[in-house]
Amino acid sequence: MKNQRISSELISENNEAALKHLQEDYDHLSTVLSRQNIDIEAVTTQAQAFEIAVPSWGVGTGGTRFARFPGIGEPRNVFEKLEDCAVINQLSQCTGSVSPHFPWDKVDDFTELKAFSDSYGLQWDSINSNTFQDQADQALSYKYGSLTNTDAATREQAIAHNLECIEWGKQLGSNRLTVWVGDGSNHPGQQHFQHSFERYLDSMKTIYSAIPDDWELHIEHKMFEPAFYSTVVQDWGSNILAAMELGDKAKSLVDLGHHAPNVNIEMIVSRLIQFKKLGGFHFNDSKYGDDDLDSGSIHPYQQFLIFNELVDAEARGQEGFNPSYMLDQSHNVTDPIESLINSAIEVQRSYIKALIVDRAALSDCQERNDALMASNTLKQAFNLDVSPILAMARYRQGGAINPLQTYRQSQYRAQVAEVRPSVAGSGSGIV
Amino acid sequence: MKNQRISSELISENNEAALKHLQEDYDHLSTVLSRQNIDIEAVTTQAQAFEIAVPSWGVGTGGTRFARFPGIGEPRNVFEKLEDCAVINQLSQCTGSVSPHFPWDKVDDFTELKAFSDSYGLQWDSINSNTFQDQADQALSYKYGSLTNTDAATREQAIAHNLECIEWGKQLGSNRLTVWVGDGSNHPGQQHFQHSFERYLDSMKTIYSAIPDDWELHIEHKMFEPAFYSTVVQDWGSNILAAMELGDKAKSLVDLGHHAPNVNIEMIVSRLIQFKKLGGFHFNDSKYGDDDLDSGSIHPYQQFLIFNELVDAEARGQEGFNPSYMLDQSHNVTDPIESLINSAIEVQRSYIKALIVDRAALSDCQERNDALMASNTLKQAFNLDVSPILAMARYRQGGAINPLQTYRQSQYRAQVAEVRPSVAGSGSGIV
Amino acid sequence: MKNQRISSELISENNEAALKHLQEDYDHLSTVLSRQNIDIEAVTTQAQAFEIAVPSWGVGTGGTRFARFPGIGEPRNVFEKLEDCAVINQLSQCTGSVSPHFPWDKVDDFTELKAFSDSYGLQWDSINSNTFQDQADQALSYKYGSLTNTDAATREQAIAHNLECIEWGKQLGSNRLTVWVGDGSNHPGQQHFQHSFERYLDSMKTIYSAIPDDWELHIEHKMFEPAFYSTVVQDWGSNILAAMELGDKAKSLVDLGHHAPNVNIEMIVSRLIQFKKLGGFHFNDSKYGDDDLDSGSIHPYQQFLIFNELVDAEARGQEGFNPSYMLDQSHNVTDPIESLINSAIEVQRSYIKALIVDRAALSDCQERNDALMASNTLKQAFNLDVSPILAMARYRQGGAINPLQTYRQSQYRAQVAEVRPSVAGSGSGIV
Amino acid sequence: MKNQRISSELISENNEAALKHLQEDYDHLSTVLSRQNIDIEAVTTQAQAFEIAVPSWGVGTGGTRFARFPGIGEPRNVFEKLEDCAVINQLSQCTGSVSPHFPWDKVDDFTELKAFSDSYGLQWDSINSNTFQDQADQALSYKYGSLTNTDAATREQAIAHNLECIEWGKQLGSNRLTVWVGDGSNHPGQQHFQHSFERYLDSMKTIYSAIPDDWELHIEHKMFEPAFYSTVVQDWGSNILAAMELGDKAKSLVDLGHHAPNVNIEMIVSRLIQFKKLGGFHFNDSKYGDDDLDSGSIHPYQQFLIFNELVDAEARGQEGFNPSYMLDQSHNVTDPIESLINSAIEVQRSYIKALIVDRAALSDCQERNDALMASNTLKQAFNLDVSPILAMARYRQGGAINPLQTYRQSQYRAQVAEVRPSVAGSGSGIV
Repeated sequence: MKNQRISSELISENNEAALKHLQEDYDHLSTVLSRQNIDIEAVTTQAQAFEIAVPSWGVGTGGTRFARFPGIGEPRNVFEKLEDCAVINQLSQCTGSVSPHFPWDKVDDFTELKAFSDSYGLQWDSINSNTFQDQADQALSYKYGSLTNTDAATREQAIAHNLECIEWGKQLGSNRLTVWVGDGSNHPGQQHFQHSFERYLDSMKTIYSAIPDDWELHIEHKMFEPAFYSTVVQDWGSNILAAMELGDKAKSLVDLGHHAPNVNIEMIVSRLIQFKKLGGFHFNDSKYGDDDLDSGSIHPYQQFLIFNELVDAEARGQEGFNPSYMLDQSHNVTDPIESLINSAIEVQRSYIKALIVDRAALSDCQERNDALMASNTLKQAFNLDVSPILAMARYRQGGAINPLQTYRQSQYRAQVAEVRPSVAGSGSGIV
Repeated sequence: MKNQRISSELISENNEAALKHLQEDYDHLSTVLSRQNIDIEAVTTQAQAFEIAVPSWGVGTGGTRFARFPGIGEPRNVFEKLEDCAVINQLSQCTGSVSPHFPWDKVDDFTELKAFSDSYGLQWDSINSNTFQDQADQALSYKYGSLTNTDAATREQAIAHNLECIEWGKQLGSNRLTVWVGDGSNHPGQQHFQHSFERYLDSMKTIYSAIPDDWELHIEHKMFEPAFYSTVVQDWGSNILAAMELGDKAKSLVDLGHHAPNVNIEMIVSRLIQFKKLGGFHFNDSKYGDDDLDSGSIHPYQQFLIFNELVDAEARGQEGFNPSYMLDQSHNVTDPIESLINSAIEVQRSYIKALIVDRAALSDCQERNDALMASNTLKQAFNLDVSPILAMARYRQGGAINPLQTYRQSQYRAQVAEVRPSVAGSGSGIV
Repeated sequence: MKNQRISSELISENNEAALKHLQEDYDHLSTVLSRQNIDIEAVTTQAQAFEIAVPSWGVGTGGTRFARFPGIGEPRNVFEKLEDCAVINQLSQCTGSVSPHFPWDKVDDFTELKAFSDSYGLQWDSINSNTFQDQADQALSYKYGSLTNTDAATREQAIAHNLECIEWGKQLGSNRLTVWVGDGSNHPGQQHFQHSFERYLDSMKTIYSAIPDDWELHIEHKMFEPAFYSTVVQDWGSNILAAMELGDKAKSLVDLGHHAPNVNIEMIVSRLIQFKKLGGFHFNDSKYGDDDLDSGSIHPYQQFLIFNELVDAEARGQEGFNPSYMLDQSHNVTDPIESLINSAIEVQRSYIKALIVDRAALSDCQERNDALMASNTLKQAFNLDVSPILAMARYRQGGAINPLQTYRQSQYRAQVAEVRPSVAGSGSGIV
Repeated sequence: MKNQRISSELISENNEAALKHLQEDYDHLSTVLSRQNIDIEAVTTQAQAFEIAVPSWGVGTGGTRFARFPGIGEPRNVFEKLEDCAVINQLSQCTGSVSPHFPWDKVDDFTELKAFSDSYGLQWDSINSNTFQDQADQALSYKYGSLTNTDAATREQAIAHNLECIEWGKQLGSNRLTVWVGDGSNHPGQQHFQHSFERYLDSMKTIYSAIPDDWELHIEHKMFEPAFYSTVVQDWGSNILAAMELGDKAKSLVDLGHHAPNVNIEMIVSRLIQFKKLGGFHFNDSKYGDDDLDSGSIHPYQQFLIFNELVDAEARGQEGFNPSYMLDQSHNVTDPIESLINSAIEVQRSYIKALIVDRAALSDCQERNDALMASNTLKQAFNLDVSPILAMARYRQGGAINPLQTYRQSQYRAQVAEVRPSVAGSGSGIV
């Protein structure tokens, strides 16, 4: 029996009150979908199966280089982060795994940590190593790079950290390592582009050789920040070349906020699928840079178009297609639990909308170059309000029909604030 | 007699060694300029008169939301910052004033602070208020805005801080207040755009009413960060409208990193000049966002084109034209003193190049629509290496011909590191 | 009795077949809206009242500088363009006016033209002048500018054209002139920014003085293209300053594709509303530059957020608020009639969604800084599928429930192709 | 003895008048460089060896989708284009080859064309195929794509054109084919990204198989335009993957205007060098999109940084490094001959500045992470005015010290205008 942070009575009460309208809406949606020969139950089953991981650092209030404005009841360590993640999954029923970040989430006894996460029914998603900050006990600084540092000893220190991450991940039952580095330069000439990338590839080869056979190594690219003139893995081009150099277990990870302005991200997703190198996603949204806003809050249609590629690849049985999904957001002005619940559902929403795209009609339009009807075929699915499917999927699994309403009624935040005193420099890093 | 942080003997020695080559180059440049009927001495005199302020916070190592990697010997308070600023001015001879940031630079006794800056021959440039961070002793939080907060008491607290900044500025002999706020939103719908801007204007009117008659109030716009969906003064359009609403003492300040991608900043400068609202600049450079890189390190030609507008306005005797110049950079991977010396000279370089543009020829090309020759007229000035003029201007005022070389030989950083122990959370904010 | 291009029998037949499902969906939507105390009939009435103009040049196939690929049956003159516009309005019932472009649409007898448009029940929207191309019979070239040309005679020629546009507009019953110029520069230095803008303002003052008292003069800004270094009215800042200089009848027009990357257009709309200078819109969509894609096809949420501002201003009874709407798109790969029908409905869709936003709840969230619920309040309206309201509004006015399906069945394009032979250089300009 | 379009007496006269000042400046520059142990004569020799091709279509006035404003004396066919190219090379002495564009430059007798180009001492650079326009005699339209068209016959037609380009190229003595296609989509859903790229690769494999062993096949990517939602080879990532699929003779070509905003192009150049896939360049400059402005007119420092990568690769003896250079610009407001002369020299300027970078010092700074001095090492070379080297290189080869001045004095444009009457639709396409 799983531990539960929110009273199941409260959830049931709220659900009871909402069920009548939900059932009405669900029934009508069933009618609408049946006109397109879509069985709503099949879609709801897929909604129930949808999973997106939550990052452990996401449950703390984020910040910018200018300031961080923490909320109350912030988690102070990985155990309290797991408690918050359990709330998110209990209400949303689609975030059953947590992605840890080391050394932030390092503990003395990983068996204890695993038992704790098990008690909440949470799995461990991809392990994130951190060589973009200096830790208090660290011998050599990453000020001028980690895996690409011109100093061999510094590179080895960074490699060693990734190796220990793999070991900790094994203890937690994870099967992936995600490597994002802040390495780059702020001045033209500061780094030799080619030598720097060669050092990166060398370091990554050592890490790759420690990756277990049933794991994947995910490479994350980013255009800029924290480096502001060049970043070593700046785009999907450098990313896929690195993944190809390393081998089959290496794949590319797409963070939606890590691209140049105007870039067609859904097309990049297609290319990575085609070349069997799409590892997974860090979902978030952005208007300007790597804003790390809530998924789907700015460009919901773009998110849908990305899922259109994913569902299409699945439908085509594209070889080697098995991406993993994670949220990676910075919650600066909201309760992180609320944002993560809401964002997980927004990603799920895009998935469900992509599922009901009439692929035969779309394919026919593409073949005939009927551009407008192709566009409208996508829009028809996007315009449909699939909220009843999402709510029903939650309800049937014991989650909340109206998760934010239920969360607020639970007074969870106020309750944890009583046992989690505010401290300057909380357990969550400013990312 | 001014205090001096760097031994004048060292400066002299180095200058002696460099003078022969400098004189050769200066003489040849004189010949080249005389072919265009330009008297090099007149230009050198203008180079000597050029001044650009240094921000007090610029002498600390900057950082990003991901990390800050401090150097050794970081200044711990405004007095030590002034010491470093004195070094910059002693070697560059063009940074005779310092722009303070409150409450970071707040002291109990401003008379003492003024006497200290006087001892180094430093003036106080524009005062910067800070309502984008919460201070330890602050009653109300700026998490959801300061001058635009929906809560009247919070707005009043922010206004009051600006009023005290004016008072402190008077004591320091400043004559300007620069207001930049981080107010904005991260979610569509979070703020009512119009009501928010109305509250901003109301708050600013109160501040404006306290601005002495011989002061200016500078408004700084920024596209994004720390707010990632909307910022209350997001561009020069909102900026100039606010300045027009407030009155003659209110002007717009241009930070080069605060614009949308691809925007023609020199044209914005021209518009502000035309409408008599150009207050001044925060100089820096950037490739992606508000990167706060060293001035001229990425887009030196853009910097020159901006000065082309400034020198043109000066030459035309444009009414109300009197902008102030300041550096505003984040030095994450360099010694801040080195970057500030170098950047001040890079801005000065653009100014000097703009001075030697053949304006009669340019004007003639413009009249005849001779686009290529107009472009080449600018390029001819830009291509000329005016380093000898810059070096001679420094030399004649007691500065260093090769300021970075002299600074490094002085061992200044190592010396201050002995008396300034490294502390977590230094006196410099992460901006 | 209006002329009709599409058989009303065909429309009726198709509508009959679609009505049952529409009624089911409409009834369910009525139920959903009634839970929010919204009367669907009131919304449908507003949908019926919604109008957006069609540009005469939009019914020809567009192109790029690289090529134009015309379709069959392209209209060869303004009369045939009106025929196509009549089809669009007959099926969509929301495009009752046409915006002409002179001299493209110039005729010898405007009375005849007016009678022709009257026969189809079409009104004449804003007049567009053209000084960005040289016409065959033109004395002086606009190669180096029109209203800003350094040559006074060329400026006068451009002014005279605008004056004749006003006269023609009077004869057609229009009440607006929209001025967009391609004036600008391709080289730094080519133009003196300030003198160029001064010439622009001078020219516009002469035009403004000819604007009838019950007309408006709309100024259109654009970041770039056809000029690639600077454009004289490059953004809303220059636009509103020009409008303020000219007077109350001058207002700013927003084309969605004319902004820098990442710019928050809905915020610009709010600013123009606040300062009583929002004249109207050219709707289209874009991913990269001024792509002139079909409205809502790329960023439907942004279009909704813009209408959120418009509906809010209307609801607040904002003084001086009365913007006009027009489509301005380039249909390079679709049948222009289809794209314009579809796009008009997509804009109408955003309007209807904005109407059902719970403004009291939104305002409350804004007051309490409940960022997530504010965002969700908007999203709730956006997520709702209002297609039944749009279809019912068309149906009740005699339009088509499924306008594209009906259009295709009508074989209109093939029919006009028989009487409109393909000619190189059709009556539609390449825009 | 080569034919010459400009009187060599005029060139000599002008050079005589300019030589004294040039020699003074050259001598002083020699002194300055010798302090850095650089022999100016070695650099001048490399300047003399520098070559950049001119595109045949570049000598006609360009335009935009809005308008084209032709000048007088426009070339009407490839022979007249060659005459203009001969002028450019005669004066600049660095543009000894011409890149043709088929079918625009197609002739009945290629032997005659070759003899004509030989008479001016001009070589034939890379062949450009054109499948982005429909030609009058063309069976199938490229409206919906060429090499990626869903219709096999259309793809075959496009392939066949590339094959005939290769044959024509052989007759002209060329050894490269450059393939740029406008294929893409304007609507989400219009094309299946993966299937479209698969068709592209299939078509290219057929073309590749016809590439002679001593030729290269260059692939050109472009972010957008003429397609505005997606382009089949949208960035260097897709480009290099295609080149890798095809084989060793296939390489990637970089056009400076074909990237997303803010992208670090010099880093892309480095990556292509590292992976042995840098084929060559289309040089131009831009501020917003693919503006095709004169090389170095907007971002001269970026151009220098690109050459810094090229010279570094050459210095390192990087395997497989042998890129070709070409100008690809659209001259809308200048005399194309003037712009091409000027631009060729601006590219040469960047090359020469990159040659005098102190690579040992730079490498040392990189090793020690001395970011500021690394940046300054580049800046020192960039700031130096190398105009005397460029002028001397021209002078020594019989070119003009002041090529634009000499060109204007020659009255060439007025002379050809007499024999080349203005015609609507000149021989130069609107690109």
